[in-house]
Amino acid sequence: MNFERDEFLSRELHEECGVFAIYNNTDAASLSYFGLHALQHRGQEAAGIAASDCGKEINCYKGKGLLAEVFNNDIIKGLPGKNAIGHVRYSKADANQLENVQPIMVRSHTNSFAVAHNGQIVNAPELKNELEVSGSIFQGVSDSELLAHLIQVEKGDFTTKIMKACEKFEGAFAFVILTEDAVYAIRDKNGLRPLALARLSDGGYCVSSETCAFDIVGATYIRDIRPGEIVRIDEEGLHAFQYTSEIQYKMCAMEYIYFARPDSNIDGINVHTARRLSGRALARVEDKEADIVIGVPDSSISAAIGFSEESGLPYEIGLIKNRYVGRTFIQPTQKQRERGVRMKLSAVKSIVKGKRVFMIDDSIVRGTTSKRIVQLLKEAGATEVHVRIASAPLTNPCFYGVDTSTYDELISARLNHDELCKFIGADSLHFMKVESMGEAFGTKNLCTSCFDGKYCTSLFSYGEILESEKKR
Amino acid sequence: MNFERDEFLSRELHEECGVFAIYNNTDAASLSYFGLHALQHRGQEAAGIAASDCGKEINCYKGKGLLAEVFNNDIIKGLPGKNAIGHVRYSKADANQLENVQPIMVRSHTNSFAVAHNGQIVNAPELKNELEVSGSIFQGVSDSELLAHLIQVEKGDFTTKIMKACEKFEGAFAFVILTEDAVYAIRDKNGLRPLALARLSDGGYCVSSETCAFDIVGATYIRDIRPGEIVRIDEEGLHAFQYTSEIQYKMCAMEYIYFARPDSNIDGINVHTARRLSGRALARVEDKEADIVIGVPDSSISAAIGFSEESGLPYEIGLIKNRYVGRTFIQPTQKQRERGVRMKLSAVKSIVKGKRVFMIDDSIVRGTTSKRIVQLLKEAGATEVHVRIASAPLTNPCFYGVDTSTYDELISARLNHDELCKFIGADSLHFMKVESMGEAFGTKNLCTSCFDGKYCTSLFSYGEILESEKKR
Amino acid sequence: MNFERDEFLSRELHEECGVFAIYNNTDAASLSYFGLHALQHRGQEAAGIAASDCGKEINCYKGKGLLAEVFNNDIIKGLPGKNAIGHVRYSKADANQLENVQPIMVRSHTNSFAVAHNGQIVNAPELKNELEVSGSIFQGVSDSELLAHLIQVEKGDFTTKIMKACEKFEGAFAFVILTEDAVYAIRDKNGLRPLALARLSDGGYCVSSETCAFDIVGATYIRDIRPGEIVRIDEEGLHAFQYTSEIQYKMCAMEYIYFARPDSNIDGINVHTARRLSGRALARVEDKEADIVIGVPDSSISAAIGFSEESGLPYEIGLIKNRYVGRTFIQPTQKQRERGVRMKLSAVKSIVKGKRVFMIDDSIVRGTTSKRIVQLLKEAGATEVHVRIASAPLTNPCFYGVDTSTYDELISARLNHDELCKFIGADSLHFMKVESMGEAFGTKNLCTSCFDGKYCTSLFSYGEILESEKKR
Amino acid sequence: MNFERDEFLSRELHEECGVFAIYNNTDAASLSYFGLHALQHRGQEAAGIAASDCGKEINCYKGKGLLAEVFNNDIIKGLPGKNAIGHVRYSKADANQLENVQPIMVRSHTNSFAVAHNGQIVNAPELKNELEVSGSIFQGVSDSELLAHLIQVEKGDFTTKIMKACEKFEGAFAFVILTEDAVYAIRDKNGLRPLALARLSDGGYCVSSETCAFDIVGATYIRDIRPGEIVRIDEEGLHAFQYTSEIQYKMCAMEYIYFARPDSNIDGINVHTARRLSGRALARVEDKEADIVIGVPDSSISAAIGFSEESGLPYEIGLIKNRYVGRTFIQPTQKQRERGVRMKLSAVKSIVKGKRVFMIDDSIVRGTTSKRIVQLLKEAGATEVHVRIASAPLTNPCFYGVDTSTYDELISARLNHDELCKFIGADSLHFMKVESMGEAFGTKNLCTSCFDGKYCTSLFSYGEILESEKKR
Repeated sequence: MNFERDEFLSRELHEECGVFAIYNNTDAASLSYFGLHALQHRGQEAAGIAASDCGKEINCYKGKGLLAEVFNNDIIKGLPGKNAIGHVRYSKADANQLENVQPIMVRSHTNSFAVAHNGQIVNAPELKNELEVSGSIFQGVSDSELLAHLIQVEKGDFTTKIMKACEKFEGAFAFVILTEDAVYAIRDKNGLRPLALARLSDGGYCVSSETCAFDIVGATYIRDIRPGEIVRIDEEGLHAFQYTSEIQYKMCAMEYIYFARPDSNIDGINVHTARRLSGRALARVEDKEADIVIGVPDSSISAAIGFSEESGLPYEIGLIKNRYVGRTFIQPTQKQRERGVRMKLSAVKSIVKGKRVFMIDDSIVRGTTSKRIVQLLKEAGATEVHVRIASAPLTNPCFYGVDTSTYDELISARLNHDELCKFIGADSLHFMKVESMGEAFGTKNLCTSCFDGKYCTSLFSYGEILESEKKR
Repeated sequence: MNFERDEFLSRELHEECGVFAIYNNTDAASLSYFGLHALQHRGQEAAGIAASDCGKEINCYKGKGLLAEVFNNDIIKGLPGKNAIGHVRYSKADANQLENVQPIMVRSHTNSFAVAHNGQIVNAPELKNELEVSGSIFQGVSDSELLAHLIQVEKGDFTTKIMKACEKFEGAFAFVILTEDAVYAIRDKNGLRPLALARLSDGGYCVSSETCAFDIVGATYIRDIRPGEIVRIDEEGLHAFQYTSEIQYKMCAMEYIYFARPDSNIDGINVHTARRLSGRALARVEDKEADIVIGVPDSSISAAIGFSEESGLPYEIGLIKNRYVGRTFIQPTQKQRERGVRMKLSAVKSIVKGKRVFMIDDSIVRGTTSKRIVQLLKEAGATEVHVRIASAPLTNPCFYGVDTSTYDELISARLNHDELCKFIGADSLHFMKVESMGEAFGTKNLCTSCFDGKYCTSLFSYGEILESEKKR
Repeated sequence: MNFERDEFLSRELHEECGVFAIYNNTDAASLSYFGLHALQHRGQEAAGIAASDCGKEINCYKGKGLLAEVFNNDIIKGLPGKNAIGHVRYSKADANQLENVQPIMVRSHTNSFAVAHNGQIVNAPELKNELEVSGSIFQGVSDSELLAHLIQVEKGDFTTKIMKACEKFEGAFAFVILTEDAVYAIRDKNGLRPLALARLSDGGYCVSSETCAFDIVGATYIRDIRPGEIVRIDEEGLHAFQYTSEIQYKMCAMEYIYFARPDSNIDGINVHTARRLSGRALARVEDKEADIVIGVPDSSISAAIGFSEESGLPYEIGLIKNRYVGRTFIQPTQKQRERGVRMKLSAVKSIVKGKRVFMIDDSIVRGTTSKRIVQLLKEAGATEVHVRIASAPLTNPCFYGVDTSTYDELISARLNHDELCKFIGADSLHFMKVESMGEAFGTKNLCTSCFDGKYCTSLFSYGEILESEKKR
Repeated sequence: MNFERDEFLSRELHEECGVFAIYNNTDAASLSYFGLHALQHRGQEAAGIAASDCGKEINCYKGKGLLAEVFNNDIIKGLPGKNAIGHVRYSKADANQLENVQPIMVRSHTNSFAVAHNGQIVNAPELKNELEVSGSIFQGVSDSELLAHLIQVEKGDFTTKIMKACEKFEGAFAFVILTEDAVYAIRDKNGLRPLALARLSDGGYCVSSETCAFDIVGATYIRDIRPGEIVRIDEEGLHAFQYTSEIQYKMCAMEYIYFARPDSNIDGINVHTARRLSGRALARVEDKEADIVIGVPDSSISAAIGFSEESGLPYEIGLIKNRYVGRTFIQPTQKQRERGVRMKLSAVKSIVKGKRVFMIDDSIVRGTTSKRIVQLLKEAGATEVHVRIASAPLTNPCFYGVDTSTYDELISARLNHDELCKFIGADSLHFMKVESMGEAFGTKNLCTSCFDGKYCTSLFSYGEILESEKKR
């Protein structure tokens, strides 16, 4: 276990991807670019757009990097058509392969189509093995490629093939599919990943991982795609199908806690509001005294404001984030690693000096970031730093699209509460109780498996890996 | 007058530059890189570092772009030596010339040196004309080049030459100079531009436009350079000289209002605190009623929090800023220009809907940004938007380093209060009174010439231009 | 038909790709980089390398651009292992898709492998349709993807699967395949595309499209891969298999005429020597008189030297090629298009002035290049320009890997001899007779289908397209 | 002395720069781009263009890199006006400073102008010292900056100032100067650097370091600028002045031998022809026997052809140059350094094998390149390699614009003939006699100081350095 691995300069937790789709607008590719820009926080390592004109071919352009690095005006012009899907990708260290950049295209003599997704299919290895045995090849490791294969081997019309394919999936996913004349939006039966539907002002439709992307394309939110639902959008309008009726509402709690943009609403709940409520809940059970409340920017500001409101203590801007991306290009000595923290965050001495501080953060993953921020605050003169986490301890790997796949990466799985408090150098440490999270965030429809290990699906081969890790 | 010119995607006001210097540290160039990174908000269009080893040559590397684009590890390694100065530059549209990228180098058979500055020398045209008549050539238009010339033509030792040169300057400036064996830090006699001094943990010194850069290089603040002061740092330590005793403390008010980072202290006053106090002052004279207080990110958040504290109304995160830089690469129709706003800012509907909003902003320059944010809030369901500006109306051009050089660029110079309120679409509009600003920010040592036209120096040729504009 | 389309700045004819492989060298990826650099003339639009350590995983890196743009030291280090294959790609305008960049990876739970090729499989559409019907998906349009699919669906050990797959192919191809413990090299049964085998100085093996790549990796040529042969290289050494015995030797004549580097030997014949012989052959049937012989750089220099030797007329450097790539970024008026020619080629007036010139070129495709060079020479003062082409008129599309797939692109298919001579502005024009080409180049084992329409395989669906074009 | 320093991948000798100018054409900047492209071989490390409309301001754009990297369409459009000058630069290792990128701009309230040059002024240090003493500052080290200063401090009209300035110069130079209403072209009194004048087809004028740039802009050669001449081009046409009558014709011999493009004429002599004649001259004194003649591409091809013609031995393409620039990014071991040679050049085995070879090269600088080419040929099977150099041994540093400024860099200054022959591994080695060079190249007007040490000007401080080196 390497607690000291420096992950500070990037966000500590990563989800894989955001998806977006446009149906029936002459600027489909351009609108997709703008929509994906609003989803850029969900993935910065690759981006792609596929566009189709009804009855004509599908063109796709994709590459590594931020949207603004991958696309320019000429490229967007080279993607004509009224329908489009798009994708922004975060790639795991072991899957930074060109073949996984989405959308995945299927170029066929009968039915060309493009697929993009967010999430993780738990039984993908099993399904892939079966397909490989019957002659399919996988060029990459993305679940979109898996769906493409399953669609191809199933029988029936295209919608039927998708339904049959989705029935086989266990796990978390939000898919968008572009065919020559339709767009599909699909969500897993547990509703683990978000996907919402909107109407464009001039008649078309729009699908997005988060509602924050609707505003920029002038779209009006209609509703979230339902768990287990397939929505087909074609020239006759919207068609909704349930590929299964065994559904539940288990939205990934980390979407509210960390991933989503505060101006997004997920399953009817505003993310900023949920975070503020969580801060209030934390404050209600608080028994320590302090002078000021500080949030770790950007994702913990909402919770800090809630904590301040409930506790009556002043909310202060005690930590400032540098908006410019720096490079710590010099060899990583201990001193330079600490410089990495300071390139990104700085403490406001005049605020912090001589104060007892409630430092509100959304979660603790490896613990090193928390440790360094506590140190920053103490060096700036804070007399006490009480760390309050607006979620429960992360003790279990996620197999639903968040890149914490081993116990080793989670400090709360290794250290008990007191050890962790000491490790990060805090004067006290308090987490939310997992059983309080539903109430705190204002919704009981949460997947909290990474906190309590209660996975809402079978884990297949991952379950065995989990067991073997536990025994170590 | 073109109120509709779209300036939204960039900050509306620009100051020219930040400076930084290191004396006596083996990593001088590397520390300068880190220090300049903390000053990146003061200039994003060019950057440069010059480094010198005592008694040996001075090497300089500079280029257009962000620090991370201009420098890499190999380049930093190519700048050996224990002393260094650095610069980040914002360039006016008419001065984007390679020759103005700083530091300006003078390579001489006797005394090579490098110069960098922040600010604007008002009598530069007159001084340049004199020099040209006696045979000097100017390759660019930077005041650093002017100082270099004046140093060269004066008589005496190097410090004397600098003192004689500075005596001739009217205007606003903070200079850093690197010679083969010393570093100089200089501030104008009115103290219009900030410059502070710090001690490195292992014995050297550090100079920076803002104190926020000290933390990352492990330096401890000593004091601000005084108006009219020249500090020479050499192997015998610090030497302070006054090149004039006719000094006053007239810090540019816009440093507190807009430019500086909130974690910086300028002339002993914390920027975040000053902004919060200004928000409080605004609230004390408030007579309208509303439900919530919203700040325009990032620079107006502190004032909004102060306003909330004083008024007792809840501070809400009603506007979210997208951290990723987008490109509006499509032809600028009206619709697309509005998209530009939405790529950068979005309103949180669940917060704003049905609410009467106090929208706190730091200033109004052209008015187009305010207009679009009011529109965003109204579309998100705000029933009333009361715009409150934490400074007075900008009615006069600045000649001290802020790029508002004509009346045409300032909407408050053209429209009266009611016309402006109508132009931006607000339900009410309130500015701070210029005479209240000193009290509001907690310091009377402010230059408020852009608000009241009381310039603290003669304006020379600029004065004539001003008069001719007024007559139009 | 658009004879005026400006193709001058790029080579007029393109072949798709070069392949390279290394077996058993600890610097396999690095050697592949060097080998591919020697093959860069075969494709400049994308490049990729896949490397494998026996028994461990296969890593692949690929991207658009020249080798030096796609790869750097860190990337090469990220491709460990003793075996590797690599690819440089020229992409047709309609196939510039990320999915076609090679090597194509198959990531399977049983047998991961990578495939790269040069050539074109004529019955690919038919084979793909069959596979799609049984559930395979094609993400791109490359024949390497097709081979990967066929291998996957066949039964037997890996070598058997490859053999069965290759038996189904009609067309021109040179494949290299990398598995976890072996490298395969395969050539089509007509021997249309080149592929040669060499021994590394320290025991390993090397495979390359052209022998010119052997020298730089310190390899010694063993022999060409035979038509219809599969060579497997594994820890027991070389294993040769014939997947068919119905073979013939029909090397693409254009390899000798235009594509290959002069220092390569193909099927035992040196390319430069073949070109020189062709120039000699041209001279033997010459009946016009002229003063000097000039070759169009670079590919026609060898033929020009041969012509000079046989004719006794002096070989002169009358045309100079600019080695720097320019951009004609200004709007394409007629004047500017002509400037494009002059940026690349210039005539030496002092050589050409007042002279009757034999201008030797390797081929005429669209005719526009020839037209402009004739014009250059006349403007430089040539009194007569007699164009001599060291091959026969291109009158038929190629379906074996050269990107002339329609009659429209071939001016000799549209204009008769006199019309063409007039079009290019020459005083006389002479082609080689197709029946003389074998003798001229010193080998009868040539495919001359683009000259005489005698295709050496069935054309499948392309045959129908051909017929329909002819009828127009 | 480090004979092994690997310089192979770049040309061994470098001259500093090419200049170009356009007078009176609405596309002045665009034509300058095209003209400079034809001069790109004279400098690849920086480029710049300054353009002026009569009576209006001068705009200048410059940067590091090839022309195609520095400029694009938008930048060219940002340089309006009918007059322009441009520059391509090779920068010495110790002068790769942004301040030396040309044209050098002087922005003055009276007379703005831009200066660019090729060459080296020998008494520049002395002139600079004088100017510095009277208050001038030098930001870079270019002679163009020196000329700008001298112009500024002289009295009289602009032409008079230039004349007075040039009178002070000793050394080699070709200047172009752009003022608001005129273009100047100037050449040193010994005529050491080339500069030629041409007429644009529609009435304007054009000036260029080499005549090869005239063709692409549609200009017709008028004459070379004369030694000691200043040509002023303004709205009244051409005005010629001699700033001195003490002139001689001493064109740098290396222009004919190595630097210039073969299609250029310098002082009335075609470069290719001069090289061919030199090859003939070499052959006339040959007493060894061999089978074939091979030239080292590109610059020695002309001489090799001449040698072949005179000797009657066949000219063969035994060495092939790879047109793609590679990177030897792997750590430089001996093996990898040799790979560097092979990435750039390869021997054609089928040509060379079993043959006795005359290998013609233009010059030997450090000797390492020659050594490696001899090795290449021997490995390819050459039985004997007789190296013939189409110039005399380089035994003296150049102070007139070629970057050989110390004896250490010149192997012929350190080793005698036999030692050198042994060092490069040749079977025999023959240089041209310096006294034969004039006759060989067809002109007696040559500066041969790098061969015989007979400098045609005083050397000032460089003379002392030379003496001190000799004593070592």
